[in-house]
Amino acid sequence: MTRIARYFPPLDWGRRYSRATLTNDLVAAVIVTIMLIPQSLAYALLAGLPAQAGIYASIVPIILYSLFGTSRALAVGPVAVVSLMTAAAIGQVAEAGSMGYAAAALTLALLSGAMLLGMGLLRLGFVANFLSHPVIAGFITASGILIATSQLKHILGVPAGGHTLIEMLRTLVAHLGAVNWPTLIVGVLATGFLFWVRKGLKPLLLRAGLAPRMADILAKTGPVAAVAISTLAVWLFGLDARGVAIVGTVPQGLPPLTLPDLSSDLLSTLLLPAVLISIIGFVESVSVAQTLAAKKRQRIDPDQELIGLGAANLGAAFTGGYPVTGGFSRSVVNFDAGAETPAAGAFTAVGLAIAALALTPLIFFLPKAVLAATIIVAVLSLVDFSILRKSWGYSKADFTAVLATILLTLGMGVEAGVSAGVILSLALHLYKTSRPHVAEVGLVPGTQHFRNILRHTVDTDPALLTLRVDQSLYFANARFLEDLVQDRIAEDCALRHVVLMCSAVNEIDFSALESLEAINERLKAASITLHLSEVKGPVMDRLKRSHFLDEMGGQVFLSQYDAWQCLTPRR
Amino acid sequence: MTRIARYFPPLDWGRRYSRATLTNDLVAAVIVTIMLIPQSLAYALLAGLPAQAGIYASIVPIILYSLFGTSRALAVGPVAVVSLMTAAAIGQVAEAGSMGYAAAALTLALLSGAMLLGMGLLRLGFVANFLSHPVIAGFITASGILIATSQLKHILGVPAGGHTLIEMLRTLVAHLGAVNWPTLIVGVLATGFLFWVRKGLKPLLLRAGLAPRMADILAKTGPVAAVAISTLAVWLFGLDARGVAIVGTVPQGLPPLTLPDLSSDLLSTLLLPAVLISIIGFVESVSVAQTLAAKKRQRIDPDQELIGLGAANLGAAFTGGYPVTGGFSRSVVNFDAGAETPAAGAFTAVGLAIAALALTPLIFFLPKAVLAATIIVAVLSLVDFSILRKSWGYSKADFTAVLATILLTLGMGVEAGVSAGVILSLALHLYKTSRPHVAEVGLVPGTQHFRNILRHTVDTDPALLTLRVDQSLYFANARFLEDLVQDRIAEDCALRHVVLMCSAVNEIDFSALESLEAINERLKAASITLHLSEVKGPVMDRLKRSHFLDEMGGQVFLSQYDAWQCLTPRR
Repeated sequence: MTRIARYFPPLDWGRRYSRATLTNDLVAAVIVTIMLIPQSLAYALLAGLPAQAGIYASIVPIILYSLFGTSRALAVGPVAVVSLMTAAAIGQVAEAGSMGYAAAALTLALLSGAMLLGMGLLRLGFVANFLSHPVIAGFITASGILIATSQLKHILGVPAGGHTLIEMLRTLVAHLGAVNWPTLIVGVLATGFLFWVRKGLKPLLLRAGLAPRMADILAKTGPVAAVAISTLAVWLFGLDARGVAIVGTVPQGLPPLTLPDLSSDLLSTLLLPAVLISIIGFVESVSVAQTLAAKKRQRIDPDQELIGLGAANLGAAFTGGYPVTGGFSRSVVNFDAGAETPAAGAFTAVGLAIAALALTPLIFFLPKAVLAATIIVAVLSLVDFSILRKSWGYSKADFTAVLATILLTLGMGVEAGVSAGVILSLALHLYKTSRPHVAEVGLVPGTQHFRNILRHTVDTDPALLTLRVDQSLYFANARFLEDLVQDRIAEDCALRHVVLMCSAVNEIDFSALESLEAINERLKAASITLHLSEVKGPVMDRLKRSHFLDEMGGQVFLSQYDAWQCLTPRR
Repeated sequence: MTRIARYFPPLDWGRRYSRATLTNDLVAAVIVTIMLIPQSLAYALLAGLPAQAGIYASIVPIILYSLFGTSRALAVGPVAVVSLMTAAAIGQVAEAGSMGYAAAALTLALLSGAMLLGMGLLRLGFVANFLSHPVIAGFITASGILIATSQLKHILGVPAGGHTLIEMLRTLVAHLGAVNWPTLIVGVLATGFLFWVRKGLKPLLLRAGLAPRMADILAKTGPVAAVAISTLAVWLFGLDARGVAIVGTVPQGLPPLTLPDLSSDLLSTLLLPAVLISIIGFVESVSVAQTLAAKKRQRIDPDQELIGLGAANLGAAFTGGYPVTGGFSRSVVNFDAGAETPAAGAFTAVGLAIAALALTPLIFFLPKAVLAATIIVAVLSLVDFSILRKSWGYSKADFTAVLATILLTLGMGVEAGVSAGVILSLALHLYKTSRPHVAEVGLVPGTQHFRNILRHTVDTDPALLTLRVDQSLYFANARFLEDLVQDRIAEDCALRHVVLMCSAVNEIDFSALESLEAINERLKAASITLHLSEVKGPVMDRLKRSHFLDEMGGQVFLSQYDAWQCLTPRR
């Protein structure tokens, strides 16, 4: 692959593009387009934006991703969690439904796009690692609950709001007397239908003799049927006059050219939300892309994915959209429908553009309750509390991080939840590495091996203390080692030599070097000599660049046995 | 040591208290008291507080530390860096010199004391490890420059302010026309005298035949001479009428009982500064205490130190003081003067109480310029840019952290500086561990050893890939391993088995477990079997508690050679 092709993947896959590939991509595009129309509308509703924003966010961004992304099957557009995070972020700066709200969504997409692009160009894909798996799992589960709860107001036909579970439930309960019964009936029927489509339709189709792949795809188009039937029903029975909220007029036309608001107040308020949206979106997208790529032994380049997603979000910012990322369900449909290259994405964009141009009058009577039902059914599959049980069994530290993430996301909103999860998992990791295992070792009689004196019968010498450190030494555990040595030597008057056995030390950072210097000074003050043994090559190279080895009173022994022979009296 | 004595150390050292110990402690207390009088006044000035706050902060806090602390020689009270941080923190909420300012200082001491005490009771001393040595060194150096610069206004006799180097220099330059010459002369003479005392007096005293220890202690009382001489000079020549700012009336009496302001606004504004002051103060104090304890093969307990410092700060909060910690210079003087137990601290407190009762009228004419001079001379010894050179030579990551800490502390103030340093060093550490060394290994012919295929001539098999991971697997590098395996297997159609050799893996956290599951799934999808080899006992125990070993298609081999023999065709 050439250097240019790395940053512009079509140069790579475009050269092998054949008529057969084209056919497969076109078929996949048609199926994904049909699926995306209701989904895009629904997620726009979730984000608090006009319905067309969801369609717009699925046109230019998909094309840009298909030019710069590396996944063959990833379908980019609005997704549930990012839509919720968008609502939470811009809810701080503007009233949902206002002009400023839609403008802030553009700014958020711009910030997110610029960050993703910048991280991609600087090859900073590794920052996504700051999100541990349990934190992501907890966050997605809690977000799913928040999203489903946020949609209950559309099913009940009452006004409600808030960005935490408690706020949402409180405002819902406060309006429970004002439930609109026609809306509730439509909403419950749609939700029931969609659940049945999800669980019951596929087995039915299979029994009817359809191929599994076809049955799967047909089952995924259930929301389209729900949309069509409910729209017809509203129109036929005049349900809108009975209080059923409908989508109403959606402007016909291609995505408009929009300019995001760049006022510094807005930018600074949206900065942190944009960071979180970018990273969450990136992590979600990369895991989907990797899972799909693995099935065909293809590879994706995470840093180039950042560029692709960055371009997609910039595209969303300038064409009336809002933050987008690679979605799980749509990508799986795209993959299962046979998409072979990112060109399938471009064809999907064409399909959606046609829908934006021609089909929007058809959804005038589409009830919002049905869109809410599609969201609820989609996100409840994200809710998976088994992570709590699994992490509890495996590691209490991971369990703590998951539980904190879930509780804080539900109780204080998405931003607090994910931030707390990241900080807590980092803190727990640092806590663990800040207390490395250090064993006092002695010689196993008749061998040259040294083992923990607490676990084995070994020879020791009162004048010689050997400590084996089972971890790299860096700032978080440097002081621990200082304390440990200090504790051990206090009031031990027979001691003359301390040997640090470094066989498991892969790194000694500057803090650890200074701790070693401090240990050396303190040992000197107590008339004890410090030695090292079994120092690895790269660590030794570093130490040679400092003055430590000159200052250290003792020697560096190649093997611990050499140290033993040199420092203990002959028996 | 009993359980109670652990939390109340006098039960331990008090039982061995003898007449000789008493004499030594009393002598040390007299010397430290003399040294502390000007120092306490000066640091109160630095913190923007009335002079008596410095004395008050040195009485009850010392007594409380002597009851709960574990260091035999640590002298607790106002110190330069914490005074500067106090000024920066409460400068946000009140005007220096106002009633609210002194009240906020009490609140800050209360918050800091409560945090230290809480951390001590929860045994959270390890959080100090979050500050790497280079960050502390950079921060102390930059703080020294900030402190010295902040005192220039007293030497020049002009008003000036600000919490960053640029602000300070700008306001100084703006007032340069209004320099008060008598003040400048007093200030420059005092600074020159104190520098000479520091560098030139001790050799002179040694040549005059004094014992080194005595010469050292006498040289440290130089500030007292400067205070006495300059106070006399101001009184004799009526310099206060010529514009030389003087300390003026300092109330005579014991520390008052004060109640900190607990309004929630104030508490929330001071929360982060209190965290930083607590941690910086704790780190400084513990390093001093450990250095001194090591000289006598004594030990200190960092968690109990938190309790001691917490009690001291609570004491400061209720007796008109401000945040305190263990100071370097005073502790060294205390140690060198022969202090044997914390009782020396209690006697120092008595000395200072007598000073507060009787001596304050004597310092009415003490020029502030002389106090500023003592601060400047004291803090310039903290300034040490060699950390930049040393860390550059040793590790570029550490150098980056130091440089950022210094620049941000000077340019944006103490809180931004130390926060940025902590965050950057954590980020750099995580970056390093997020890209562990992973070697593809093969069999060294004629042995059972496996080595890196890039460095050694080894046997390999096209159907078998063995990867040795040289780091514990946790969330920050889990995805890296996923990517790496994915990249390596892409388009390698001969591959049938992947073995992860885990000899250097000390931990597999839940994220890494899920990554292993993902790797396993993806390998399965590509018809490749995943195996593990040389898994350590504790890691294996964990894995057995998950379903991973059941799901994994392959085996867990005790040794890599077993894996090789089992998975490659007999030759």
